[in-house]
Amino acid sequence: MYNNAQILELFEQSLRQLRTPEEPELLYAPIIYSMSGGGKRLRPVLLLLSTEAFGGSVDEAMTAAMAVEVFHNFTLLHDDIMDNADMRRGKPSVFAKWGENVAILSGDAMLITAYKLLTELNPTKLQRVMRIFNDMALEVCEGQQYDMDFESQKKVMVVEYIQMIERKTSALLSGSAMIGATIAGASDADIKLLYRFATELGLAFQLQDDLLDSYGDEALGKKIGGDILEGKQTYLMVQAMSRATEEEREVLRTTHLNSKLSDTEKIATVKALYDKLEVKRATEQQIDQRFERALGILDSLSIGAERTVHLAEFARNLIGRKK
Amino acid sequence: MYNNAQILELFEQSLRQLRTPEEPELLYAPIIYSMSGGGKRLRPVLLLLSTEAFGGSVDEAMTAAMAVEVFHNFTLLHDDIMDNADMRRGKPSVFAKWGENVAILSGDAMLITAYKLLTELNPTKLQRVMRIFNDMALEVCEGQQYDMDFESQKKVMVVEYIQMIERKTSALLSGSAMIGATIAGASDADIKLLYRFATELGLAFQLQDDLLDSYGDEALGKKIGGDILEGKQTYLMVQAMSRATEEEREVLRTTHLNSKLSDTEKIATVKALYDKLEVKRATEQQIDQRFERALGILDSLSIGAERTVHLAEFARNLIGRKK
Repeated sequence: MYNNAQILELFEQSLRQLRTPEEPELLYAPIIYSMSGGGKRLRPVLLLLSTEAFGGSVDEAMTAAMAVEVFHNFTLLHDDIMDNADMRRGKPSVFAKWGENVAILSGDAMLITAYKLLTELNPTKLQRVMRIFNDMALEVCEGQQYDMDFESQKKVMVVEYIQMIERKTSALLSGSAMIGATIAGASDADIKLLYRFATELGLAFQLQDDLLDSYGDEALGKKIGGDILEGKQTYLMVQAMSRATEEEREVLRTTHLNSKLSDTEKIATVKALYDKLEVKRATEQQIDQRFERALGILDSLSIGAERTVHLAEFARNLIGRKK
Repeated sequence: MYNNAQILELFEQSLRQLRTPEEPELLYAPIIYSMSGGGKRLRPVLLLLSTEAFGGSVDEAMTAAMAVEVFHNFTLLHDDIMDNADMRRGKPSVFAKWGENVAILSGDAMLITAYKLLTELNPTKLQRVMRIFNDMALEVCEGQQYDMDFESQKKVMVVEYIQMIERKTSALLSGSAMIGATIAGASDADIKLLYRFATELGLAFQLQDDLLDSYGDEALGKKIGGDILEGKQTYLMVQAMSRATEEEREVLRTTHLNSKLSDTEKIATVKALYDKLEVKRATEQQIDQRFERALGILDSLSIGAERTVHLAEFARNLIGRKK
């Protein structure tokens, strides 16, 4: 069995073979630009590791792995328009580089390209895998819509926030794991467990991302407080809102809009409340719980611990744990 | 065998059964709004007629018919953003009614919904149909990109224009016909002929649309000259440009931008040149030729004239011919 680094290398090799027509250039060049922009390739790696864990063939699953990565990059392309985001992975976003119309249409072509890759699966497995893929894809759209809805929502409940990131972040990971296992012919019971494993892991991953935005290590080059300055709903913010007094809520709601404060002051104001309301500890606890739960679910798969070692490695890498 | 009106009625009945989740409302409400906005349902009707012509089951092909109609409406939804179009079939476009972000994301969900419908095909036919659908969908994107490219292109050749509308208009018709015939188990030779039939018909249809914009019957409520005022590339314009002197070309290129002229004067100026350069007659000839060619191809199918009678009826209705 391949480990995570080997699977990633195999995937990158295959991805380099991805071809699009040359013309019309404004339709296809952004696809190549977007796919060659790097990224951690989490979803295809998880898909291929899941195939391997159940004794399936990485070769057979490769086009499906490419499909989930193309799909992921498609979502980024359209999200960047909706979020007005100029930069992506340290380079201009497609939206910033080519404009909105190109980003819309190239994104559409990417979504179709994802399905084109998926179509090349073994026909006896195609329908089952397509069903998982379709449901996953719609959930990601739902998650993005809920996330946008939150911007105009006065108060977001913790449970609503979790439901949103289950769709926006976890669905693509759990879908990838399920597709990988389905291609390997895993049992329905194991596929269901793998879904739960990836869902919990995805939640832990997103909460960690939220945490690092406020409490990351600036020494590691991480810019702190971006979410706070944008007034974004994060796990820390919705937890803080659920614990705050009415007065504190007003501060949490309005600080990012307060033109009398510098960015540093805005961040300090919100973080002072986070500290007081102990949301850092609450978030860390959630991450730990979800991570442990994910690893526990791996142990309950029917295939034995020696076959899940690389999925466990994937989980640890994702959350940045040594054990 | 059902005739065109009966097939349309069966399709509308099925379409009324289409359900989406209720929430998030801003993701799904625009899909229902868009699908219930009417339209001629040309593509699903052609798909189902093709299935019937080859002795297939309309029931079996119905989800694929819904898929091509949902796909068509998805393209309109995204095109309306790119073209900044406020109205669609006499109602506010999704873009105008809900804004751009909703139109992008709902459009994405529609494209996925089209694939979801397609997925419910008989699994033994799914891969073949998916391949046709994917290629068709990418061609439509290519056509839209070429159409946008033309806006900043000084001169569009007649052959380039034909290649563009082969993708933007014909591909969805020919793809629908091929999918219908594939579901019915038609031979590769017949499917290829049907592709050519629908391609020619689609070209005739688009050229007729271009013609009516300049020479339609105002008494029938058709507003004349919209394409001229927008400075759009149409078959008439590219034909005129290919026949004009350098001086006349300048007039064709710049009249819609001339702020000294009223709309009526702009239209009259361009149409005077169209008349002089005999592009009306050239367009009518093209329409006739393509239409006749399409009908001729129907005769060469292996199934005999009595099985193609409703496809011929479809062709005549589309181009508005009695015989």
